[in-house]
Amino acid sequence: MCELLGMSANVPTDIIFSFTGLVQRGGTTGPHKDGWGITFYEGKGCRTFKDPAPSSNSKIANLVMEYPIKSCSVISHIRQANRGGIKLENTHPFVREFWGRNITFAHNGQLSGYKLLALFDFMPIGETDSEYAFCWIMGKLKQKYPTKPKNWQSVFRYTAKLCKQLDELGVFNALISDGVHVLAYCSNNLTWITRKAPFGPASLIDKDVTVNFSEETTDNDIVTVIATRPLTDNESWVKLEPKQWVLFRLGVKLN
Amino acid sequence: MCELLGMSANVPTDIIFSFTGLVQRGGTTGPHKDGWGITFYEGKGCRTFKDPAPSSNSKIANLVMEYPIKSCSVISHIRQANRGGIKLENTHPFVREFWGRNITFAHNGQLSGYKLLALFDFMPIGETDSEYAFCWIMGKLKQKYPTKPKNWQSVFRYTAKLCKQLDELGVFNALISDGVHVLAYCSNNLTWITRKAPFGPASLIDKDVTVNFSEETTDNDIVTVIATRPLTDNESWVKLEPKQWVLFRLGVKLN
Repeated sequence: MCELLGMSANVPTDIIFSFTGLVQRGGTTGPHKDGWGITFYEGKGCRTFKDPAPSSNSKIANLVMEYPIKSCSVISHIRQANRGGIKLENTHPFVREFWGRNITFAHNGQLSGYKLLALFDFMPIGETDSEYAFCWIMGKLKQKYPTKPKNWQSVFRYTAKLCKQLDELGVFNALISDGVHVLAYCSNNLTWITRKAPFGPASLIDKDVTVNFSEETTDNDIVTVIATRPLTDNESWVKLEPKQWVLFRLGVKLN
Repeated sequence: MCELLGMSANVPTDIIFSFTGLVQRGGTTGPHKDGWGITFYEGKGCRTFKDPAPSSNSKIANLVMEYPIKSCSVISHIRQANRGGIKLENTHPFVREFWGRNITFAHNGQLSGYKLLALFDFMPIGETDSEYAFCWIMGKLKQKYPTKPKNWQSVFRYTAKLCKQLDELGVFNALISDGVHVLAYCSNNLTWITRKAPFGPASLIDKDVTVNFSEETTDNDIVTVIATRPLTDNESWVKLEPKQWVLFRLGVKLN
């Protein structure tokens, strides 16, 4: 299995604190040592850092932890391989272009019988069930939206329905973003928290680090973090129910 | 204008020497300070490092210069903006998936009247003429190959024809790769060199660095480097003629 991390914020925010907690689980406090990746949206563009090496021992992960890239939408993943070898092409997140937006996807879980799903227009590059499922979602979106969608919230509501279909094939916890929205679909393990004023201190579970967000933020900031398991031990994380999904737009929950 | 750098090799090779020369032109010895990017293929996967900041002053470029990522195919670009602001989404290289392969593209030049080209299936995310032209190429490939191509060399030969059409609209020097092949299309400025045994020393033009490749390679290695202008001053680079293109497969020139 793997672990997911996502962020949705109304102002460009760095995710160093949460990412520092996550990467410990990639070989130090957790077994997810088969690669890691993180996608940062900046404007309409995004950039992905990924490595098939363990995150707890990765020069590129060190750079990401030391270099504050500010973003309103982030998707990250650390991998414990099940389907597909430890290779760059099997490392999440996966990105495809859809009507002029970068769509980013990361998955935690495992699917069976997924190869019976007919693909349309988007093809996997690696061998994971995850990328196959993502390509299936993208193909269904392309069929549903033959012209550029005007209402992107409805695109994500339809995507959540597709996630529910995939969930029938096994375990499917997923994060999907277009840079403005972040969709979190829960099969069995996904939690989230929204931080806003008054901000307080937060302490990582996986490393002895505490941040006082009141010193890092303004009163208008809204920052939502989504993770497979809570990353801090002194805050209240909301655990999603099986088959539940939440959609965030720039930090704010829409459903 | 911008500068291009590409590599095609028969064994995974690091490009640190050439990249170190290129990034000096991104703000130090050259004016190309409006962003930079580099895509490394590893197996079927690829990863792109990019930054809208000048390469000569980029923490991420420093990482790439210090961390030897070994690859058989590399595409890199430093930007001096003309069409499209200095933003991440306007930073080359651009990547799209086509029949299960990552196709990477970088462009040096400027086009006029390009928006009259009808796009099919692939849409630009940023505002550059370059990404628009790339999406047009990809759409034409999708129309030409409605099923998975068996002969990828013919895909690249057709791509070279499409490049020639784009060249009619202005200046179009371009590098395009699927990880196995690297196509270099010359509008007015593109040079290349193939290094193989017996290897000798090479000295960068833009920085006081010399490498003795005989110490870094084996007798079987074939490494081709393509650049807008020669990167070394003690080797013979081949200058392409206008409208000429060369296709490399794992270091070896095919045409």
